[in-house]
Amino acid sequence: MSKIKYELLHVDKYSKARRGRIHTPHGIIETPVFMPVGTNSTVKGLTNDQIKNIDSEIILSNAFHLFLRPGMEIMKDFEGIHNFMNWNKPLLTDSGGFQVFSLKDRKISEEGVLFRSPLDGSKIMMTPEKSMEIQQTIGSDIAMAFDECVNAKWGYEYMKDSVDRTYRWAKRSFEAHKKENQSLFGIVQGGLFSDLRQRSLEQITSIPFDGFALGGLAVGEKYQESEKVLKEFGDKLPKDKPRYIMGIGSPTMMFLSVENGMDMFDCVLPTRMGRHGTALTWNGKLNLKSAKNKFDHSPIENDCNCYACKNHTRGYINHLLKRDEMLGKTLISIHNLYFNIHLIHKMREAIENDSFLDFKKEFFSNSSYPLQN
Amino acid sequence: MSKIKYELLHVDKYSKARRGRIHTPHGIIETPVFMPVGTNSTVKGLTNDQIKNIDSEIILSNAFHLFLRPGMEIMKDFEGIHNFMNWNKPLLTDSGGFQVFSLKDRKISEEGVLFRSPLDGSKIMMTPEKSMEIQQTIGSDIAMAFDECVNAKWGYEYMKDSVDRTYRWAKRSFEAHKKENQSLFGIVQGGLFSDLRQRSLEQITSIPFDGFALGGLAVGEKYQESEKVLKEFGDKLPKDKPRYIMGIGSPTMMFLSVENGMDMFDCVLPTRMGRHGTALTWNGKLNLKSAKNKFDHSPIENDCNCYACKNHTRGYINHLLKRDEMLGKTLISIHNLYFNIHLIHKMREAIENDSFLDFKKEFFSNSSYPLQN
Ligand SMILES: [Zn+2]
Ligand SMILES: [Zn+2]
Repeated sequence: MSKIKYELLHVDKYSKARRGRIHTPHGIIETPVFMPVGTNSTVKGLTNDQIKNIDSEIILSNAFHLFLRPGMEIMKDFEGIHNFMNWNKPLLTDSGGFQVFSLKDRKISEEGVLFRSPLDGSKIMMTPEKSMEIQQTIGSDIAMAFDECVNAKWGYEYMKDSVDRTYRWAKRSFEAHKKENQSLFGIVQGGLFSDLRQRSLEQITSIPFDGFALGGLAVGEKYQESEKVLKEFGDKLPKDKPRYIMGIGSPTMMFLSVENGMDMFDCVLPTRMGRHGTALTWNGKLNLKSAKNKFDHSPIENDCNCYACKNHTRGYINHLLKRDEMLGKTLISIHNLYFNIHLIHKMREAIENDSFLDFKKEFFSNSSYPLQN
Repeated sequence: MSKIKYELLHVDKYSKARRGRIHTPHGIIETPVFMPVGTNSTVKGLTNDQIKNIDSEIILSNAFHLFLRPGMEIMKDFEGIHNFMNWNKPLLTDSGGFQVFSLKDRKISEEGVLFRSPLDGSKIMMTPEKSMEIQQTIGSDIAMAFDECVNAKWGYEYMKDSVDRTYRWAKRSFEAHKKENQSLFGIVQGGLFSDLRQRSLEQITSIPFDGFALGGLAVGEKYQESEKVLKEFGDKLPKDKPRYIMGIGSPTMMFLSVENGMDMFDCVLPTRMGRHGTALTWNGKLNLKSAKNKFDHSPIENDCNCYACKNHTRGYINHLLKRDEMLGKTLISIHNLYFNIHLIHKMREAIENDSFLDFKKEFFSNSSYPLQN
């Protein structure tokens, strides 16, 4: 038994929020959990020690980017990403689907997606089998099935075909996946169409994946649209497996997702905002580039225990940002990841105490984050 | 007694190399010592913890850059640079002279140097008094007298006038300096002219500064030229005070300087090279951007105890550099500073054992660094 194992510990009495635990080959993850993104096998601007010091239990990396660089020859040579980046805790890879579908000049067929390499323009065919090969080479603890990421604008008929194709690709992914100590999650698509979501959910959950994701959200749709999908389908995902919603990382969307029974989230937001000088705090967003921080001797956030807040002032960080010093970006990235991870910790506590909805109410009434956005 | 105090512990039997100790308001510095440069009150790419973990005993910051940004109003508000950047160990500031003289469009007079602010074009007069005011506001443990940095090409007559002007400025610096817990070093100029160096040395050392520097070297002259100055004048500096040579940081120049009785060095080289992908090792320079590192599972340097070498391979760092990830620059900067600092540690040991020249011989025969460059 070297795949993941999910334990459901408690469900909040007044919402669908779940407190769980995932056992992985590289250790235990408590859920709900926020996963920092390390696209190029590095969480931008942080050392592994710094990532661990913010209590990160799992990180995510992108199969597509790793496939291009360093490339699979190097990944094989280093026997996988854990060795390559010296990360000894859990790691999840996406399937590469999202990135491939974001390219111009790609062609979808039953077989897979033909695209041109952004590196050298060469033609590459990405298929469920190829994605499994790549993710098995990377050696993540959790791999994702290869699915079609559909633009919601393409309409019902296209989505319907795509849902069925994603099902066939999910079966091929499942068939092709052989790695003993790696788990595989299926992805439910269907866009904003209830009947197609339901269809996809039935199809995908008919395959004995180790966990399930809601895909095709956080791609520019309205809050109300994702809310509708989450409310209707979040808790329809199997109760005995982890539930992952991809690309979610704002407080607003994390609360919504947890409330509707989701367990896992990832987003580049905390580090990207950090590099651009914006901090996430319990009061709301804080623009540290603003001149009003120049004389401010307080940390980004009072009572925050992150390295940045324990050691540096807003005034100093403002100066670093103005001088475009790496340390400024690193400090805010550390704080922002710490914020997201510890916001989730507070959610865990609230679920354990059946007070998730109270906690949510309190959070939004004490901060400028929108309850809906 | 809150100024620095220098103890001469031992002089190598077969060279002028000295082993000493400087007591400062923020702790003890063993000498010889290499000082990492933190131009904008941050050693580029490193946190304070990372700087301390490479065993850095003192860092240098630049009065001119801090004067421009964050500016003295902020520096006053934060009660000095130690508070501002949360650095609780010794710190030295240069006088700003070197940077002011590097500007185009500056005009030298007896009073000082008139220049245009690189920030907003406004006219600013830098004088010995102004430099003292700035450095006292910054609150470094060691401040430097304001001197004229002369282009060696301007010839003997100009240099002679300049040496005398630097003397008058040194006296004005000394007069203007009032800060109790800050020491002030004088700077000997005179370029490559022996008689003018001698003249400057006699002038500057007639003032009871707390230490002395050789200025006007490491500004593009030939190795033989700086060697001549160091051999002739290094050990003529007072024996009971620290001796600092500015802008020195290559193994070649550090060995030459220590051999001739100098104690303190600073240079941006280790971090600048780090950001550009070149590592300093005991074998010589190593270009980590080169494709030959792609499959290399070894650290930058075997047996190196720095964070980069204890945790990461050349292959991984090569990948980070190719993807222009901050972590790559940070890791090599950490290693390079560690290398310079620990090379100096080895020199200290060698001096204690009267084997400095043997150590030097061994170092250059085992590495590709030039004995002279
Ligand atoms: Zn913080
Ligand atoms: Zn090292």
